[in-house]
Amino acid sequence: MTVQDSSGGIADLSSDLRFEIGTDDPLRLDCGIDLAPVTIAYRTYGRLNADKSNAILICHALTGDHHVANTHPITGKSGWWQPMVGPGRILDTDRYFLICSNVLGGCMGSTGPLSIDPASGRPWCLKFPGITIADMVRAQTRLIDHLGIDQLFCVIGGSMGGMQVLEWAAHHPQRVFSAIPIATAARHSAQNIAFNEVSRQAILADPNFLGGDYPLHGVKPSRGLAVARMAAHITYLSETALHRKFGRNLAGRDHFTYGFDADFQVESYLRHQGSTFVERFDANSYLFITRAMDYFDLAAESDGVLANAFARTPVRFCVVSFTSDWLFPTRESRALVHALNAVAANVSFVEIESDKGHDAFLLDEPDFHATLSGFIDSAAEHRGLGRRFFR
Amino acid sequence: MTVQDSSGGIADLSSDLRFEIGTDDPLRLDCGIDLAPVTIAYRTYGRLNADKSNAILICHALTGDHHVANTHPITGKSGWWQPMVGPGRILDTDRYFLICSNVLGGCMGSTGPLSIDPASGRPWCLKFPGITIADMVRAQTRLIDHLGIDQLFCVIGGSMGGMQVLEWAAHHPQRVFSAIPIATAARHSAQNIAFNEVSRQAILADPNFLGGDYPLHGVKPSRGLAVARMAAHITYLSETALHRKFGRNLAGRDHFTYGFDADFQVESYLRHQGSTFVERFDANSYLFITRAMDYFDLAAESDGVLANAFARTPVRFCVVSFTSDWLFPTRESRALVHALNAVAANVSFVEIESDKGHDAFLLDEPDFHATLSGFIDSAAEHRGLGRRFFR
Repeated sequence: MTVQDSSGGIADLSSDLRFEIGTDDPLRLDCGIDLAPVTIAYRTYGRLNADKSNAILICHALTGDHHVANTHPITGKSGWWQPMVGPGRILDTDRYFLICSNVLGGCMGSTGPLSIDPASGRPWCLKFPGITIADMVRAQTRLIDHLGIDQLFCVIGGSMGGMQVLEWAAHHPQRVFSAIPIATAARHSAQNIAFNEVSRQAILADPNFLGGDYPLHGVKPSRGLAVARMAAHITYLSETALHRKFGRNLAGRDHFTYGFDADFQVESYLRHQGSTFVERFDANSYLFITRAMDYFDLAAESDGVLANAFARTPVRFCVVSFTSDWLFPTRESRALVHALNAVAANVSFVEIESDKGHDAFLLDEPDFHATLSGFIDSAAEHRGLGRRFFR
Repeated sequence: MTVQDSSGGIADLSSDLRFEIGTDDPLRLDCGIDLAPVTIAYRTYGRLNADKSNAILICHALTGDHHVANTHPITGKSGWWQPMVGPGRILDTDRYFLICSNVLGGCMGSTGPLSIDPASGRPWCLKFPGITIADMVRAQTRLIDHLGIDQLFCVIGGSMGGMQVLEWAAHHPQRVFSAIPIATAARHSAQNIAFNEVSRQAILADPNFLGGDYPLHGVKPSRGLAVARMAAHITYLSETALHRKFGRNLAGRDHFTYGFDADFQVESYLRHQGSTFVERFDANSYLFITRAMDYFDLAAESDGVLANAFARTPVRFCVVSFTSDWLFPTRESRALVHALNAVAANVSFVEIESDKGHDAFLLDEPDFHATLSGFIDSAAEHRGLGRRFFR
């Protein structure tokens, strides 16, 4: 199966799976709207065992998707967690059944602003209903129902993926045996809302945005979306990492141009990040998903007391942060761990020494990988999933 | 005297002073161009003493200007360092003669991209020559010559103002008795270049930018410039300050709108920062001045050894940083102090405990003010400027 993607290229989506939520049982969203039909695009890796006890749900970050460990249909690059997934790897496809779905509001196959609004027969664009992290997870619970899985062995994810992990643990605790929230927070901070707002304003300022109706006019707010990505990308790296990678090195020249070309390598790197991003991501999706992150605040619905969101939780937690992550700094993870401790939850907390910033969770960090491996092995043992399960 | 400012309002500039560099002795810029005529707009406060030994040059930051301690002609607000300046204050107008000039490349009266290019009879726009921090200081040295001052008692400034202070000390050491570089660095970091580049791309992406020729068409790239300012403004504050000021408070509403209005106070604050900024600042100036910051690297011209830039310096330094400043973090000041120590310079270094971020240098920080006061008093004593100089 091939489909034409939004940038006009032909993408191989032959192994993509689709789950449909019909109009007979719509998805009730936090904003009060009943949304249907809803398509959830997903991928699986490995095999579900007979008692359906070996499923791991992987939750992707803001600009991620369900192409965790396969070649990306648009970019042609490896999956975003490819090194983590495979036989004998941390997310061991010989032992576990891995599931990852594109989030509600996304642009890689799941229902989002590019999808057709049944009422108008045209793309939703900005008329798409506002969504929340809880809404994304509600859609995932329907998928897990559909797969006949009562309880996930593990829910794992970093950044916005970690928010989904926490949402699962807080609101569906009986359906989660273990949870691994990585480089995340139980509420989006003022600074992070501020960065998201800058990105949104960059998109809204693009003359091709056309009030969100650009898909109807065959254009894209590419420059605005690229600026949004550039601003966000800085927050994914540490100052140390930027200094190590680029320092003040000039980009293919010996002298300053005294103009506004990319004199410095860090500039051409950022421009590249912006220009490649717009080929694979929809600007309206970016608006809706960043908004969902802004709205995330687990304590707010529990009288402002985060611990109450996890009262009597049976879930085993492994909370992971990185020393140089300034977007989701360790103090956010620590606040989460304090709340979990207050309700005597079963929680491990590891702060990984890394100078790679927020993106460390996507990168080769041996201590991080050892932490995950140890926790998952131990949880599997408690769950009665033997080490040689499939072998 | 009243003049029409660039936003169409009438601004009272009656106390503005202008110094002209004529075509007979043009300003030789780092890019190799001889620039003339050049106007430098400036203000003074206090009186120059008979032997011209009590002059303090104040250097402003990226978006500052020479309206240090008077009502701003466009915004109607107090000067940016107003509480610091006056009889008996830290910059004591009873004792010192304060000078501040709008930087070369600026848009508040000094020659910049809005000025007329003599060759074409039209505004320079992007044809303005690329400038550096050293060029800004060269223009200031001409002004100081014009005022008949051989040696400045002190050069003081924060952020980009601090870069100018360092440039003065490094390249005109005999003309500087004491130097106070605040919340600054001897070279712009990769992360700061990255943030500047995001701001520039936001401006360049605005359809009203018109290749920089917007002044010829009576329009302004206001949305792009506003996004640039919003991105930059986040870097001026600490996460703690943003949390304390705004947290996750909603902006004049009880519920999420599930849309893209400013649901959160931090969003409406940022939008306000963006929209007011564009009324007082020129987008082309923003491009040229951020570029000058990017290019700043005092060590580069001394074989990469910062200490060499200060060999045998007679200048007394007071280096100040703030604990929560992540744009110009303390490690940058420390690197500077190490270099100064390596050449046995006379240097005090104070890291001020503050949670206000980079902007702390503009705010009411008692420890900061006590530090400045103590250093300036002591330097004045060494310079033979008695405490009761004018009283």
